Amino acid sequence: MFKAAINAELLKDSIAALAVIVDEVRFKINPEGISVKAVDPANVAMGIFELGSAAFEEYSADECEIGIDLNKITDLLGIAEKTDTVRMELEEKSQKLLIDVGGLSYTLSILDPSTIRAEPRVPQLELPAKVVMNGADLRRAVKAAEKISDHLLMGVSGDTFYMEAKGDTDQVRLEMGRDQLIDLKSGDACSLFSLDYLTDIVKPTNKVNEVVLSLGRDFPVLIDFEIANGAGRISYLLAPRIESD
Amino acid sequence: MFKAAINAELLKDSIAALAVIVDEVRFKINPEGISVKAVDPANVAMGIFELGSAAFEEYSADECEIGIDLNKITDLLGIAEKTDTVRMELEEKSQKLLIDVGGLSYTLSILDPSTIRAEPRVPQLELPAKVVMNGADLRRAVKAAEKISDHLLMGVSGDTFYMEAKGDTDQVRLEMGRDQLIDLKSGDACSLFSLDYLTDIVKPTNKVNEVVLSLGRDFPVLIDFEIANGAGRISYLLAPRIESD
Amino acid sequence: MFKAAINAELLKDSIAALAVIVDEVRFKINPEGISVKAVDPANVAMGIFELGSAAFEEYSADECEIGIDLNKITDLLGIAEKTDTVRMELEEKSQKLLIDVGGLSYTLSILDPSTIRAEPRVPQLELPAKVVMNGADLRRAVKAAEKISDHLLMGVSGDTFYMEAKGDTDQVRLEMGRDQLIDLKSGDACSLFSLDYLTDIVKPTNKVNEVVLSLGRDFPVLIDFEIANGAGRISYLLAPRIESD
Repeated sequence: MFKAAINAELLKDSIAALAVIVDEVRFKINPEGISVKAVDPANVAMGIFELGSAAFEEYSADECEIGIDLNKITDLLGIAEKTDTVRMELEEKSQKLLIDVGGLSYTLSILDPSTIRAEPRVPQLELPAKVVMNGADLRRAVKAAEKISDHLLMGVSGDTFYMEAKGDTDQVRLEMGRDQLIDLKSGDACSLFSLDYLTDIVKPTNKVNEVVLSLGRDFPVLIDFEIANGAGRISYLLAPRIESD
Repeated sequence: MFKAAINAELLKDSIAALAVIVDEVRFKINPEGISVKAVDPANVAMGIFELGSAAFEEYSADECEIGIDLNKITDLLGIAEKTDTVRMELEEKSQKLLIDVGGLSYTLSILDPSTIRAEPRVPQLELPAKVVMNGADLRRAVKAAEKISDHLLMGVSGDTFYMEAKGDTDQVRLEMGRDQLIDLKSGDACSLFSLDYLTDIVKPTNKVNEVVLSLGRDFPVLIDFEIANGAGRISYLLAPRIESD
Repeated sequence: MFKAAINAELLKDSIAALAVIVDEVRFKINPEGISVKAVDPANVAMGIFELGSAAFEEYSADECEIGIDLNKITDLLGIAEKTDTVRMELEEKSQKLLIDVGGLSYTLSILDPSTIRAEPRVPQLELPAKVVMNGADLRRAVKAAEKISDHLLMGVSGDTFYMEAKGDTDQVRLEMGRDQLIDLKSGDACSLFSLDYLTDIVKPTNKVNEVVLSLGRDFPVLIDFEIANGAGRISYLLAPRIESD
């Protein structure tokens, strides 16, 4: 059993944050909320998504798992107004998800979860450095880096967090001291990442006040922020490129 | 003789409503106003357009017929400001239409009406059901249907007007009761229409408060609304698809 | 030595005005400001650009010449806010231009000026007629002409400035009398120009209050306007087409 109502914009933002990683996901539903863990097809980026029942206007669910094509949800939410309420109900017998929004009633076939890649194991990582910054700052640095290179180096040096991209002839560097950051835990951190992935991952951070980056030396980065006014959370784990300097 | 002045945005909206059906049309001009009847090249949709002299700031005309390439008018109105006045005058000897807007003077060759498909005969139809609704509601339902299917079923069941689109696995349905509609005349009505055509036809309804749909069983739909603050009217007649259920 | 600071939007507008003509330019720098003279690859249009030191928030420079890829500057300014200050410094030993904007530090390789086409000689022309008009009026006339033709005739007849474009069947004409212009010096002027070039050249005039056109008979047009609140100036010299009537 799954029956819930949620604000359309909040759901749209949540789906967009997930769609960065994969198109088809397994939603793990239980009485406390919905969670998703998914890995991109190339095994480079992982998304860990949690939306607690508090994010919903109404929520009642037993434990279940449903497969969802995120593009379909994105499509139908595209027609909704920001303030619309989206009502969802799982029709277990027919394996349909009934979605009601703005007077329109959708009947979507859900996907057999067994046809969707299994939930990945989330690795336990010791990431010594931690940077808390404004999402718009992160996004701007990534956009600047794209103009110059395919890769972005992120690291911490003393009390400074830096991002740096080097092209054949040009380079761009952003340095942020402790006073320009919301928080900084210094540590040995310097890793290179693919901008193909970062560009997508930082898109949802544009509206986010606090993004937490956890970093190590030639280690994955964990990019982590709240969604749904704190009732949910999304974390991305992005593998490093080896050619780090 | 034809000489007229009209607000640029009003003319732009009128031309856009016609351009949904055809590119080249015969304008029938007489002292009371301008009218057009046109059928799309595949004979699926008909447009019946009337713009009374009251829609114009100035209007004086004898009976005449001129051929117009709507794309040209759309192009030149694209440069006009919304509040500009468009002045038109037919130069009969040279068969030119002189158009003056925003200080720019255009001299357009008019088309020989005999090279444009003749006015269609408008069939007399008994359409038992009638639905009066907000244009934006209609447009939203059509946009939702496009995501799911190529066809849209429209019908009346008791006191409810419904639109429904079915794809291979998913469907969407909009039901509107008498209280959600501006007016409803119940009747036996259920017909299937091509969304290719409906998408175009409902585009101009977005700003329209009252759209009248007249429907029957496996019959064409008549979509009808006022333009130019009531000084004009456009009606679309769209043939049904046969595979209706 | 070259070290300067300037408002981001002002620099962006200046670069955009130059980029109409060429992608790579030689900036001639001296203590009074920066100047560029460049010709497009087909030798049809020339741009003469001057930005005095008064346009800058800070400015100190010795005489030098640097080669710049305008696309790179456009790219990085695309990320800047309008109110950002752009700080530039030439690192002579490494031949790098250091650019600092919005916290981002760019290191751009400058181009060897000898690899860029030499400064053209600016011809001394006697252009008898002079028209001073609003930039938006000019741009609108050019946009209207594009819909009709590939060429635009510009001329002065008595106290009237006119622009006219003729297509196979249609034509558009803009006439502006002395009272609709900011200023007019009558003279024998009627020349035909390629709209390919004019379209690009008039783009930056959209925000410009006073554009000066200097014209002759089958002669180039000089299009001239202030930038940076009067602290700079750009002039375009566009060769005529021979088929003038």
